[in-house]
Amino acid sequence: MILPELALTGYPPEDLLLKPSFIDKNLEYIEKIRQLTDKITLVCGFVNKENGIFNSAAIISDKKILSVYNKQHLYNHSFFEEERYFQKGTENKIFEIKNSLVGVTICKDIHHSEDPAKIQAIYGQAQLIVNISAFPYYIGKISEYEKLLQKKSVDYRAFIAYANLVGGQDELVFEGNSLVIDANGKIISRCKPFEEDRLICDIDLEEVKSIRLKDVRYENQKLMFSGKNISLPKLIKSATKSLDSADKESSLNKRSYAPSYTNYEDFISCEDEEILKALILGTRDYLHKNGFEKAVFGLSGGIDSALVAVIASMAIGNENITGILMPSCYSSQSSIDDSLELAKNIKINSISIPISRMYECYLESLKNIFKSDKINLTKENIQARIRGNILMALSNELGWLVLTTGNKSETSVGYCTLYGDMAGGFSPIKDIYKTKVYSLCKFINKKYNRIIPENILIKVPSAELKPNQKDEDYLPSYDLLDKIIKAYMEEDMDLSYMIHTMGYPAETVKKVVHLIDRNEYKRRQGSPGIKINPGISGKDRRYPMTNRFG
Amino acid sequence: MILPELALTGYPPEDLLLKPSFIDKNLEYIEKIRQLTDKITLVCGFVNKENGIFNSAAIISDKKILSVYNKQHLYNHSFFEEERYFQKGTENKIFEIKNSLVGVTICKDIHHSEDPAKIQAIYGQAQLIVNISAFPYYIGKISEYEKLLQKKSVDYRAFIAYANLVGGQDELVFEGNSLVIDANGKIISRCKPFEEDRLICDIDLEEVKSIRLKDVRYENQKLMFSGKNISLPKLIKSATKSLDSADKESSLNKRSYAPSYTNYEDFISCEDEEILKALILGTRDYLHKNGFEKAVFGLSGGIDSALVAVIASMAIGNENITGILMPSCYSSQSSIDDSLELAKNIKINSISIPISRMYECYLESLKNIFKSDKINLTKENIQARIRGNILMALSNELGWLVLTTGNKSETSVGYCTLYGDMAGGFSPIKDIYKTKVYSLCKFINKKYNRIIPENILIKVPSAELKPNQKDEDYLPSYDLLDKIIKAYMEEDMDLSYMIHTMGYPAETVKKVVHLIDRNEYKRRQGSPGIKINPGISGKDRRYPMTNRFG
Repeated sequence: MILPELALTGYPPEDLLLKPSFIDKNLEYIEKIRQLTDKITLVCGFVNKENGIFNSAAIISDKKILSVYNKQHLYNHSFFEEERYFQKGTENKIFEIKNSLVGVTICKDIHHSEDPAKIQAIYGQAQLIVNISAFPYYIGKISEYEKLLQKKSVDYRAFIAYANLVGGQDELVFEGNSLVIDANGKIISRCKPFEEDRLICDIDLEEVKSIRLKDVRYENQKLMFSGKNISLPKLIKSATKSLDSADKESSLNKRSYAPSYTNYEDFISCEDEEILKALILGTRDYLHKNGFEKAVFGLSGGIDSALVAVIASMAIGNENITGILMPSCYSSQSSIDDSLELAKNIKINSISIPISRMYECYLESLKNIFKSDKINLTKENIQARIRGNILMALSNELGWLVLTTGNKSETSVGYCTLYGDMAGGFSPIKDIYKTKVYSLCKFINKKYNRIIPENILIKVPSAELKPNQKDEDYLPSYDLLDKIIKAYMEEDMDLSYMIHTMGYPAETVKKVVHLIDRNEYKRRQGSPGIKINPGISGKDRRYPMTNRFG
Repeated sequence: MILPELALTGYPPEDLLLKPSFIDKNLEYIEKIRQLTDKITLVCGFVNKENGIFNSAAIISDKKILSVYNKQHLYNHSFFEEERYFQKGTENKIFEIKNSLVGVTICKDIHHSEDPAKIQAIYGQAQLIVNISAFPYYIGKISEYEKLLQKKSVDYRAFIAYANLVGGQDELVFEGNSLVIDANGKIISRCKPFEEDRLICDIDLEEVKSIRLKDVRYENQKLMFSGKNISLPKLIKSATKSLDSADKESSLNKRSYAPSYTNYEDFISCEDEEILKALILGTRDYLHKNGFEKAVFGLSGGIDSALVAVIASMAIGNENITGILMPSCYSSQSSIDDSLELAKNIKINSISIPISRMYECYLESLKNIFKSDKINLTKENIQARIRGNILMALSNELGWLVLTTGNKSETSVGYCTLYGDMAGGFSPIKDIYKTKVYSLCKFINKKYNRIIPENILIKVPSAELKPNQKDEDYLPSYDLLDKIIKAYMEEDMDLSYMIHTMGYPAETVKKVVHLIDRNEYKRRQGSPGIKINPGISGKDRRYPMTNRFG
């Protein structure tokens, strides 16, 4: 039985790791689990404490802790900050189970050029490499990761059992999708992606021996590994007891898995479906794990709030979602109609609370400070903040979590109101570009019988905070905007490269980069939301606000 | 001439370090600076690029780059994340200037048990250790740091020239207070703390030789440093040209420094004055470096807003500060009177914008959702958010930065309204406990002729969001509350220790810890503010919101 990296604490535990009582509680639980391993061999992620703490795997068999493997290649980039907390492991251990040899590695260990699995397999003769992992989802990760693991299994001529965390924690979503790969690189079994799942798989580790017969590396091991970074494997003899009952269950369950389940496409048909599953899982877990059963959001008639409505209702059930219409004098009738039609289609509650009277009241109270009678940014923001106040009042009074509906394109350039439409507890589409919002909505309509009214997909985007307002009056086309944001924020390209090599218009690039830089302060105060892009974004984006570079 | 650590980029540059164009621009500037070092030897912090990037010091003399020292002991705790970006240096170099030997180290290098300065001084015979630093202020740091550097100078029998950054960046304040210490541990010259300053100091490095005569370590160096971590110093001969003009200026300026200036107490009389200077410097730099000339805040008549008013007017000038009175039907007349008296005393502008009509308008619009007619948390928060909206409208319309007035005690336990009184661009007293707020105000009144009306200091604290409300109805006494927050948030003590060893009342401890844990989400969305406590707080506090521990 294999559980993921830091299965006991959740990942990442962050500064909880600085609390001695947190570490101690985790040790108490590994002890409780030990007592439950009756006729089972278990690999379980936990925090090991020796001199300092380690990101570790306990190898437990039949109520005995056989060994503890400490992660060697800590990861310290993006949202990973393992070197802030953990010491590095140094020992490559293998253990014996029923006459077969097994090596355990943790997450990024297996990506490293000095992969301990290599030593375990080639020098230590391990036939199975267990890799426990808590590496979050991002677009493109799944096929990238599968190829890497398949390559490793071929390279080491070993089976790989990869157990990855599944679920959401704050801004991260872990896709699960745990795998068993044979020594020829073939995926022979798979957990469902984006769902909690249990995988039972029988493998014949003897296969490995015949494959290795022709590989010269397995003859001349000592010659190949004379380098200084190789520590001798500690071979732990045990777990050789006959595990009859587990065997029985295992054989039974293997037969219940149809061969087609080894294909990812059996679960997920396209990238849009994959992203949608990630957003639904992340939203559900943020709400439920933080004790919220119900959610509320501003239902504007725009495409962003439509996507959030669908995600939320799929995450925690349509009966637990309420959309609030908050029309002003600038709201179009079609926005109200589209909102109500959407609410009807997806069977969520809706309430209408017009803001015109409150807005007039602010204008009257503040008349002495306004420079002119025109509707300007100040007055637009007042409207957005009235709406924020109303949603938060509903949250306070009824215990509903407020979902914000901002997408990545607008929050990147600050086309949103702090404490207004940015007010809320969780932001499901925070890392989704506007062009991707359209793509996801089209996928939803294709798969779920056009539940999003067509008019929402074809209307010109507008914040409707003053008459005849359109997003494109302020911003370049979303197609171009999204490309520039991606190049600048995710790929760290500089202006000159974007203009001269990528060929984007100079004025637009300069404007967008300026907007991104000066809105760092707004993003800093934004609510958490799901991260799905591989680049740095969300909480792991660490820019000084006070710096004049660029 | 010695400039601080990463003087070219500001500290910490955070993810700007991931941008190749940022690194290149910094290299362009070190080249520009090189061309300006006519008859000067300069040590300047910059980002060095070899294979990867380094936190480095360029040693430049008379237009030649003599050497580059790469920081060896990177710091990766609290807000420091150097291992996210930098490679570690490995070489201990010294260089020769006018027949004297000098070693350069960077910040935490000198704190480390394998301090490169030790090798430079004892093995390499360096007579002067230059330490360039960007280590931020915290309460207690200054005397701690001075003692450490004095101890090092005695231990190594070397002069130490310590150049520390001064100014604010986001949440950090650097106190400057650069020092020259002789080989007997005596501070012989000092830059003004909390101010930009230039220090010119003549020292006779020949003194070192006579002191070292009796120290056996300087005879048997090779014996003492046979360990594996010692790399041979690279001795760079140069900078031996006669620097006549620099000499002349140096001698002149030395005489202008009175001996008393070596005492910290000549600048700062007590801890409260030190903290106040830190808050003023941090607020000024945040505003000015981010392009704001004016600031606005809610003037409630309470002690927090009084302290923020004084800090802000000392930071950027009373004529640039406006306090907004936003009385409701629950505001007492004395709050209004006290506010106006304070504004008059410190000569800041004040504007009154009553919120009662807006509040009634919300109550009317939301009447269907309220469970009862009583004033509850929902209605209290609506008032706070109306005030937030008004302050932000003034900010939008007039370009003033909104200062939030929340203290550490209330934001720690969430006794504040997200998007209400928490709305704003900068939070000067975010890391100041309520008990410290009182202490600072008393210090201000003692030093500045009672500018804060006495009634503000003696009245019972209240949010005035409903009739007869008092903070103590919701929270334990601030004296106890502050101790528990400090123990839990800064010192990572667990419940059992606080109750059984420290003797705090069990019910209170449990309540406070529960409030701290569940308000992580609020703090996450709070505005940046100055960090002055040594423990982890502000942006460097990294707790998952989604975790059920505790």
